[in-house]
Amino acid sequence: MNSDHVKSAKALEAFLHTYVPLAQAAKIRVDAYDGQNLQVSAPLEDNINDKGTAFGGSLYNVCVITGWGLTSLLCKEFGFDGDIVVAKAEIDYLTPCKKDLHAFVQRPPDEILEIFCERFKRKKRAALSHAVEIRNEHDELCVRFTGKYAIVA
Amino acid sequence: MNSDHVKSAKALEAFLHTYVPLAQAAKIRVDAYDGQNLQVSAPLEDNINDKGTAFGGSLYNVCVITGWGLTSLLCKEFGFDGDIVVAKAEIDYLTPCKKDLHAFVQRPPDEILEIFCERFKRKKRAALSHAVEIRNEHDELCVRFTGKYAIVA
Repeated sequence: MNSDHVKSAKALEAFLHTYVPLAQAAKIRVDAYDGQNLQVSAPLEDNINDKGTAFGGSLYNVCVITGWGLTSLLCKEFGFDGDIVVAKAEIDYLTPCKKDLHAFVQRPPDEILEIFCERFKRKKRAALSHAVEIRNEHDELCVRFTGKYAIVA
Repeated sequence: MNSDHVKSAKALEAFLHTYVPLAQAAKIRVDAYDGQNLQVSAPLEDNINDKGTAFGGSLYNVCVITGWGLTSLLCKEFGFDGDIVVAKAEIDYLTPCKKDLHAFVQRPPDEILEIFCERFKRKKRAALSHAVEIRNEHDELCVRFTGKYAIVA
């Protein structure tokens, strides 16, 4: 990670803890950002359910924040200012998550980002979809999430 | 509400606050259950975002708990014992929610519940889908959520 990316990741975490009480209650951490991949996590202890595994709402929470975080980091990179909101999302729970919740999202391909940037400059609003995954310590997929995020100038 | 339903609603709220720390952090309340409709809410203050409206993760959280709650209340009514988990869900965010979060779900029709009961007795596992809504004070739809819940004996 270069120092700009580290600063962006730390600023994102501070922002979430300041403005989103539920992100603070869930002890969301922004673990890594290198301009390509964003990793966000939360401890099991604060996100557990009655079965001793990660609560479904918490798994969604980590995913929706990860997608929002990447959208926000990309908008900062492109110099776009506006409100970023999640418009819709889908989640599949595949395997129970028995350890800390680690979510992972990848930067969209350049051709998608070019369309996004062009649209935002023209219409002052645009949307990006992100696929977020949570895997367990055996690299099995626990959660598959897709969220559509809109930015409005 | 008859006194059995009031007791069930109170027991559900106590269960959530004991076993799901994020439900406690979100200050989830089970407001009403009459055997037909379940209403669950959470204060805006603990579920706010940077824009002063309800955080998308919190809106999902209230919905997923409402659907889980109804599944759990129905399983209790039918005398079914087992783990209840959310298997998949979809959510659409239609209008920002600027006040406390009020979620509402309706008991499925009898013919759906008959299939569910028959299947659980035969296979020791069965699933139910619930549509949960969050409306604002002007009765506008803020969130449309659909979740599929499985019970496994």
